[in-house]
Amino acid sequence: MAEFIAVDWGTTNRRAYHMGQGGAVLRTERDDRGLTAIAPGGFAAEARALRARFGDLPMLCAGMVGSVRGWADAGYRACPVSIDDLAGALCWVEPGRTAIVAGASHVGGGRGDVMRGEEVQFLGAVAAGFAPADSLLCQPGTHCKWARMAGGRIASFRTTMTGEIFALLRKHSLLADFLNGEVKRGAAFQEGLAASADGALLGDLFGERASVLLGLRAEEDVAAHTSGLLIGSDVREQGLHAGETVYVLADPGLGDLYCAAIEHMGAQALLIDSHAAFAAGISHIWEQHQ
Amino acid sequence: MAEFIAVDWGTTNRRAYHMGQGGAVLRTERDDRGLTAIAPGGFAAEARALRARFGDLPMLCAGMVGSVRGWADAGYRACPVSIDDLAGALCWVEPGRTAIVAGASHVGGGRGDVMRGEEVQFLGAVAAGFAPADSLLCQPGTHCKWARMAGGRIASFRTTMTGEIFALLRKHSLLADFLNGEVKRGAAFQEGLAASADGALLGDLFGERASVLLGLRAEEDVAAHTSGLLIGSDVREQGLHAGETVYVLADPGLGDLYCAAIEHMGAQALLIDSHAAFAAGISHIWEQHQ
Repeated sequence: MAEFIAVDWGTTNRRAYHMGQGGAVLRTERDDRGLTAIAPGGFAAEARALRARFGDLPMLCAGMVGSVRGWADAGYRACPVSIDDLAGALCWVEPGRTAIVAGASHVGGGRGDVMRGEEVQFLGAVAAGFAPADSLLCQPGTHCKWARMAGGRIASFRTTMTGEIFALLRKHSLLADFLNGEVKRGAAFQEGLAASADGALLGDLFGERASVLLGLRAEEDVAAHTSGLLIGSDVREQGLHAGETVYVLADPGLGDLYCAAIEHMGAQALLIDSHAAFAAGISHIWEQHQ
Repeated sequence: MAEFIAVDWGTTNRRAYHMGQGGAVLRTERDDRGLTAIAPGGFAAEARALRARFGDLPMLCAGMVGSVRGWADAGYRACPVSIDDLAGALCWVEPGRTAIVAGASHVGGGRGDVMRGEEVQFLGAVAAGFAPADSLLCQPGTHCKWARMAGGRIASFRTTMTGEIFALLRKHSLLADFLNGEVKRGAAFQEGLAASADGALLGDLFGERASVLLGLRAEEDVAAHTSGLLIGSDVREQGLHAGETVYVLADPGLGDLYCAAIEHMGAQALLIDSHAAFAAGISHIWEQHQ
């Protein structure tokens, strides 16, 4: 397999990988040139700038760059989705030079779900042997993705708004003044996880503020407690089986919080390097398409 | 009972009542002179302005005007709270002239809750015979209050952030562009109620957008569907018994949506005039304190 440039191109951030022979990562660069930073029609110039730094190589992009607000709509592949399905459905924005990987979609019980970029990581995690072919994977973030893998394919998935709800509460809500404290694994976070057991999130959120007013909780603990409540609610929504292993693709900080929540619910959590998973996935797609 | 001025004084709005002999409401006035519109130290001047319009009468206020951000901190009475408890705990900000009713607080399962203003409506609804002495009352709004009455007192209550979460989603979230449609009782709202049955709100919210992207739902239906999902989740959190009656204190628009949700869950809903309940409650407090 020859060298190429792989780009995980999201809404606010972007990570470019210089991929070498045999799928080796020669170099990566992360910046804030996500979709929101790029004017309409500006993507070709961005690709030129990347090639100026990484070399005049073919380029394979994944993520929101393939949405209607991105460079071009790369579409969605419906579940079950295999890595070969993605390799067979590239959207060429510069013929023979630059392509975008399709997203994945899932419909179940009348509810639709979509992802762009995470499908490469999930399939890459299995392709690289980081997770078994039949497993449950989780990628926390602004929108947390939970993917059920079966036979190495994404059988189904579900996205939760957990991170965005926390951000909305912190920036704009009645709780905003109380959510400036540090969020870390500790007693307050664990108590928040336990509080999520009642399945009554809308009421529990109001209680975060009232509990401070009534002297039941220290103000500096509210952020961690609320985070525990939200992440605990998120994990509970997935209906984990006791002892089941969840493979978590995340940076250590947020990954650690999700691992704590998963373990609190009686399951096992294993942290996976999401960049290595992306590199493995995009390499397989590049190799297969040729 | 002599004439007085009653003021339901909230964060953004205010409603003043000219109360006549025997608890009759002679006149009411609603304006936007809530707390956020009044500079620190400006409450006495506001009271003078009200007296200039309503007459030089004693004044009894309730609501957020009794918070630390209001005229004075009128404190909280812990549940169970009777109307006599409130009458015995007035906070006089102008001796013999102007008083503020205390709020109510409740602690259960390590979670605290508070209200200011709604306690007068709940106790007034029972005092006026609009609801039985043992009943469940609900006051929807930015923060929805659910009060369990026992022996005519507020035995416990719980506040949900339902209305605020909807407003945050509509103003600031990924869903914002999809939430401009009309929210009314109809097929989309009912489907949202049904969708809340899975108790997986964080995931269902993301599905609101994805379902449009995948052509499963019309964009103009998303606001009503999301409202049904949130209000349905709120009502489910209360664990209603089949056939139980919930007395809803609300304006017809929002009240109608909550009544639909309550009936969807197999309980009965009865709409009560919240202004009449406030007038009854504040009259009883005024009468009892003397």
